[in-house]
Amino acid sequence: MQNVLENAGRAGASLPGIEHLTLAGGAQGLSGLSLWRQSMAPGSATPPHQHDCEEVVLVLEGSGELHLDGEVIAFGPDTTLVLPPNRPHQIFNTGATTMRTVAAFSRSPVGTFLPDGAPLALPWKS
Amino acid sequence: MQNVLENAGRAGASLPGIEHLTLAGGAQGLSGLSLWRQSMAPGSATPPHQHDCEEVVLVLEGSGELHLDGEVIAFGPDTTLVLPPNRPHQIFNTGATTMRTVAAFSRSPVGTFLPDGAPLALPWKS
Repeated sequence: MQNVLENAGRAGASLPGIEHLTLAGGAQGLSGLSLWRQSMAPGSATPPHQHDCEEVVLVLEGSGELHLDGEVIAFGPDTTLVLPPNRPHQIFNTGATTMRTVAAFSRSPVGTFLPDGAPLALPWKS
Repeated sequence: MQNVLENAGRAGASLPGIEHLTLAGGAQGLSGLSLWRQSMAPGSATPPHQHDCEEVVLVLEGSGELHLDGEVIAFGPDTTLVLPPNRPHQIFNTGATTMRTVAAFSRSPVGTFLPDGAPLALPWKS
């Protein structure tokens, strides 16, 4: 297994307004951990979704809103978002600049589902 | 539980040359995930140590060396380090600038041990 990976030039994936790179996960032999990096363009948002594991998002740059359980919480840069398993949530970039995040999950692969529980297919592996 | 935490002003901890902040872990109700942020001064190093869980380190800034299983691997900024459980390792800042990292672990609290298996007490909770 490769223990040191240069991130520049690694193959990522995208959703509308979102650029994604799986920093580490199943491809690196992990089963209980996955680490993602994303950038979100101003005005973009994740789909409403939930995961089958714990998630922590570190917001490095940008500002936005976390929608969680019907609550709306605004946040700025240098913020940590804590998302328990199976809790539908959505992240919006409401600022004028690109939002940059690192997200950690307590399993690999990460299960991602719509709020009604149907699987949400993502264009990357975790 | 608090789902959104502003990191500025949160209480951290330190080891010689290392400034630490537990971004999320047991204090946020997590059991399978812990996220840390650290900065390491030029010339500093972690103790040789191992964990009882998977670890991924994202090196945001700086350059250094990973010592793992007797191997020495140099790395620059924007690098991902993948550390399987129970593998003694050590990270050195060999550069001229502060190294900044985010580290994710597959459990909370994170067990940290010396290479001989003795527990290593750290001045922070995870």
